[in-house]
Amino acid sequence: MRNNTIFQEKNHTVFAPDRVGALMLPRPETFAPDRTVDQVIARLREMGEGERRVERCYVTDDKGRLLGQASFRRLVLAAGEAPMGTVMKPPFLTVCPEDDRETAAQMMEQFDLLELPVVDGRNRLVGLVTADDAMAVLQDEATEDMERMAAMAPSETPYLQTRVVTIFRSRILWLLLLMLSATFTGAIISGYEDALAAQVALTAFIPMLMDTGGNCGSQSSVTVIRGLSLGEIHLSDWARVCAKEGAVALLCGGVLGAVTLLRILLLNHLSLAVAATVALTLVLTVLISKLMGCLLPLAARRAGLDPAVMAGPLITTVVDAAALLIYFRTATLLLGL
Amino acid sequence: MRNNTIFQEKNHTVFAPDRVGALMLPRPETFAPDRTVDQVIARLREMGEGERRVERCYVTDDKGRLLGQASFRRLVLAAGEAPMGTVMKPPFLTVCPEDDRETAAQMMEQFDLLELPVVDGRNRLVGLVTADDAMAVLQDEATEDMERMAAMAPSETPYLQTRVVTIFRSRILWLLLLMLSATFTGAIISGYEDALAAQVALTAFIPMLMDTGGNCGSQSSVTVIRGLSLGEIHLSDWARVCAKEGAVALLCGGVLGAVTLLRILLLNHLSLAVAATVALTLVLTVLISKLMGCLLPLAARRAGLDPAVMAGPLITTVVDAAALLIYFRTATLLLGL
Repeated sequence: MRNNTIFQEKNHTVFAPDRVGALMLPRPETFAPDRTVDQVIARLREMGEGERRVERCYVTDDKGRLLGQASFRRLVLAAGEAPMGTVMKPPFLTVCPEDDRETAAQMMEQFDLLELPVVDGRNRLVGLVTADDAMAVLQDEATEDMERMAAMAPSETPYLQTRVVTIFRSRILWLLLLMLSATFTGAIISGYEDALAAQVALTAFIPMLMDTGGNCGSQSSVTVIRGLSLGEIHLSDWARVCAKEGAVALLCGGVLGAVTLLRILLLNHLSLAVAATVALTLVLTVLISKLMGCLLPLAARRAGLDPAVMAGPLITTVVDAAALLIYFRTATLLLGL
Repeated sequence: MRNNTIFQEKNHTVFAPDRVGALMLPRPETFAPDRTVDQVIARLREMGEGERRVERCYVTDDKGRLLGQASFRRLVLAAGEAPMGTVMKPPFLTVCPEDDRETAAQMMEQFDLLELPVVDGRNRLVGLVTADDAMAVLQDEATEDMERMAAMAPSETPYLQTRVVTIFRSRILWLLLLMLSATFTGAIISGYEDALAAQVALTAFIPMLMDTGGNCGSQSSVTVIRGLSLGEIHLSDWARVCAKEGAVALLCGGVLGAVTLLRILLLNHLSLAVAATVALTLVLTVLISKLMGCLLPLAARRAGLDPAVMAGPLITTVVDAAALLIYFRTATLLLGL
């Protein structure tokens, strides 16, 4: 339902699709501040219904610089002979055509704006963003983030209208990359083959350790990715975020570790050393995966990449290797393998 | 940034927070169809700026039933003596207070509406939803879906303002549940301990098989969950969705299986039987996880549950067990364990 007005006429810049310039309705009708309300209404009558989606009258000076805006409601309520300069309100917020369209839409949501004026470097009104376009942007960006978080290239068309080959292409690259990365995890296991052969029971806990690490990492990464996207978390908060995730990790790790220790002792009837190895690995894995889950998206943002890529699938692969290394090191220490 | 007007005055129903009734601005000012534009403007002047967020005039009959609506722009352009009945447009879409607020917001986004009238069972105007509230709903719902997909209970407050204990509580239950479910996967490994001891090389491929299955399942489930949420996929499409995911799975599985087969033969220098076991397991795992990834969210919707719960973490756990069962069965057949 996107309704981009691509700004492509001659002598005009073409903006990338994620910029405000590609989203805005270009060059809305403007009025001089000395025009009276009656004159404006007469002009609007001439124009007829025109661009029905515009819900504000914009007032500019003779250089086209934005002075203010008035809703049609204000126009209805004002005296006919009042000049627009007295009826208008100064612009509350403006954006530039080069700004990110998601940021503009977020601002409109945050400040309950139905229209957002777009001005150039000299404060000249060059377009406006409407609430319905902002809604479409927020939906599109949320969908894109979810697709990236699930290791897919964002799609442009609705699912049922997308060809199988297109879906395949949006998915296969990440799958291949992550599968080959998992080779490292396999190599770690191969490196400890003798230890595993000596203590075969240890193998049975590998899925649980890997899955729990992946789940903990997903929780933290999605929290941070969404927080960054909503503007609730900023790069400068990184230390607070890490401290918070660290504390949550210790609480989660403590509970999960205790449950695992008891379960192995009481249900699996394995030795305390095995139980301690698994439980300790679990606590450390939870800690590492929660810290990875918050640091990797922050690092991506810092590097100018999309933080949404640093979600579940990638973190799972990284954390798997870490979990297994910890597991085998701990086993070597506690079980003397 | 939610701006819910909870409808709680005496003699009025209190609506659940996810219903339109809890979101709408209640009882907007209405006008009779025989009122002229000038009379309406005079009344608006009396009211002053009033509820600034309302951008439409609503016309109702003497029973309060919605007849139509007019933007302030139409009011400005209409002749002063014209009765509202001739100026108004019939309502394009309406919702009920009992409707889901997400559905209402989606409708507004889809049809580019700035306001959506809310009517009761007798078509009486009881409120309206504004575009800025719809934007907030779309953002909230996307955040909730992402949190559920990452196995968390949705949070109400921004991350940095949420206490560590609250974050812990929103995460630990799912972690525990998924960890205990992974026990089944461990039990499968324990059941095949002898086979693994005989062919230790097989263990090294377990992380890759599990991760790839999880990633494939995440891709499909997020696609279907988001498609359901955006109204691009409906329950009745289940057969088409499964056929599509099945086809994508065969393509993805084919590529991943071929790469794995070559890699094991050329780089790991293992026997063709081992390579074939791993590759065949991979193809079947991809197929099963993609089908699970689309069927589980559809089944959740069918059962009246939130499909977002059936995402990566839960599907990974289910698919892990399936992948290992296939692995060991294939190994038994091809390697004669």
